Amino acid sequence: LTIPIPLNTIPPELADYPSVVMLPVLWGDMDSFQHVNNAVFFRWFETARIDYLEETGLRNLLSEQHLGPILAAISCNYRRQVRFPDTMLIGARVTSIGRSSMKMIHLAYSQQQATIVADGESTIVCFDYKANKSTPLPDAVRQRLAKVEGQELGQ
Amino acid sequence: LTIPIPLNTIPPELADYPSVVMLPVLWGDMDSFQHVNNAVFFRWFETARIDYLEETGLRNLLSEQHLGPILAAISCNYRRQVRFPDTMLIGARVTSIGRSSMKMIHLAYSQQQATIVADGESTIVCFDYKANKSTPLPDAVRQRLAKVEGQELGQ
Amino acid sequence: LTIPIPLNTIPPELADYPSVVMLPVLWGDMDSFQHVNNAVFFRWFETARIDYLEETGLRNLLSEQHLGPILAAISCNYRRQVRFPDTMLIGARVTSIGRSSMKMIHLAYSQQQATIVADGESTIVCFDYKANKSTPLPDAVRQRLAKVEGQELGQ
Amino acid sequence: LTIPIPLNTIPPELADYPSVVMLPVLWGDMDSFQHVNNAVFFRWFETARIDYLEETGLRNLLSEQHLGPILAAISCNYRRQVRFPDTMLIGARVTSIGRSSMKMIHLAYSQQQATIVADGESTIVCFDYKANKSTPLPDAVRQRLAKVEGQELGQ
Repeated sequence: LTIPIPLNTIPPELADYPSVVMLPVLWGDMDSFQHVNNAVFFRWFETARIDYLEETGLRNLLSEQHLGPILAAISCNYRRQVRFPDTMLIGARVTSIGRSSMKMIHLAYSQQQATIVADGESTIVCFDYKANKSTPLPDAVRQRLAKVEGQELGQ
Repeated sequence: LTIPIPLNTIPPELADYPSVVMLPVLWGDMDSFQHVNNAVFFRWFETARIDYLEETGLRNLLSEQHLGPILAAISCNYRRQVRFPDTMLIGARVTSIGRSSMKMIHLAYSQQQATIVADGESTIVCFDYKANKSTPLPDAVRQRLAKVEGQELGQ
Repeated sequence: LTIPIPLNTIPPELADYPSVVMLPVLWGDMDSFQHVNNAVFFRWFETARIDYLEETGLRNLLSEQHLGPILAAISCNYRRQVRFPDTMLIGARVTSIGRSSMKMIHLAYSQQQATIVADGESTIVCFDYKANKSTPLPDAVRQRLAKVEGQELGQ
Repeated sequence: LTIPIPLNTIPPELADYPSVVMLPVLWGDMDSFQHVNNAVFFRWFETARIDYLEETGLRNLLSEQHLGPILAAISCNYRRQVRFPDTMLIGARVTSIGRSSMKMIHLAYSQQQATIVADGESTIVCFDYKANKSTPLPDAVRQRLAKVEGQELGQ
């Protein structure tokens, strides 16, 4: 993204993640419990997901064929409470590919706590916006993912 | 909640849900894809969750013992896109209880589409805010849940 | 909007407003001060603004000429704190028209407190998205506004 | 805040601002118009406001006397559209003080556009949360503000 992350600030937990974005906690991200609200983590995951698709060229590969990603499912496990002020490092990586979908894992790392505070998983479906239905992932996408992730990905 | 829901607007899909809240889509809930953003569903689930705990008296039963609910995990499956204007009916019910946690299912029903557009699941842990750790669910809570849900709940 | 507002729930303060929308407070609208966050009022005003433009036919009159509204400025005065649960009635009306802009007033009424809790003002500019610049308000829009608001509007 | 801002990235427009925070745009900050939603600017201003009060020690000076800030009014002028990805620099400074309130100016600078994209003004009231009413600003706060802003501030 646009805040360059000094290489020495990437913690070992995120070393293998092709995309890591640095996002400060806003004061207004906290709710009445005076910790960051559960829905905010999905805002963070989303920006990491978009960054991954952009940086790896996947979004371009899809849009060339008039396809795009659509989110089919998402989950989050909350391990620790997060408070303002803090800065998060959010990692994204693809761990498996099906016929027309892929699974992406997200890690949320707190610089204040120097540990992972949440993890999540997205299911992203390859969508044909003209035909308004899901469609098989193009081979070019599979090849790019294998290259980015350093291994062939199966289900 | 504070908008009374006319009984005849509760669809059969939500008939067995102890708590149903009626929430209009805001224009600003939509994102660049011109549909409701994935994170907004968690805002809706949250209000349904709080409403359930409040309406069933569970929140009082917990706070009498200086306990409170904390969200440990949540997920959502997106079945259909939602757009403004629309009004959602969000149902919540508890489906299982463990030693110190319970699972709650959420359904999101769109009045425009007259169908369920998303479902999700929360894992809520019983938390001792003094001791700062999870703690077994009190028996009074188990009994109340059995009464509200019309059956003994196990894992 | 899609939640019909029973006529007898419109308070006298909003009786002259051509558009009133009914919006429940979500639990997550509250921040660490355990009252509704200041930014949420702008979400409410926005939905009221869109509803006004839609219901009065102004949006259609503009889009027929490939024009659209763009927000140039907005403000809010906070008179009282708002808490969950509550339901807001948000009114919108146009009070003056300039060459290429109009001013809209918003009132936020709390059903719990039975009083106005905030007021605000939007400046909406008529925008030519092709030419990427502001443009004079069409006469058809001025005439419609005079009809909707029951008077000729000047600056 | 917690992302240190390299000194050479502070643009001349913000050089005199005692507090500047660096906040990346999130993808989800954009709305259906595919630009950052108007309400998001208030989230940014809020974090800048809190940062100012924290960094200058004003929040401590207030809380020592069981006082706190409360937002009475806020406004924003939108000069240019903002899109993801981008990083904002948000400045805050106090420009005038009344008996029990102060006015703070906010500037939003886009790194992508290398210019100010929005400005705003907050009215912050000194609030006695015990007595539940506004109260005169303590002299210690006035003196600190004069020091931070480099001049005596009047109305």
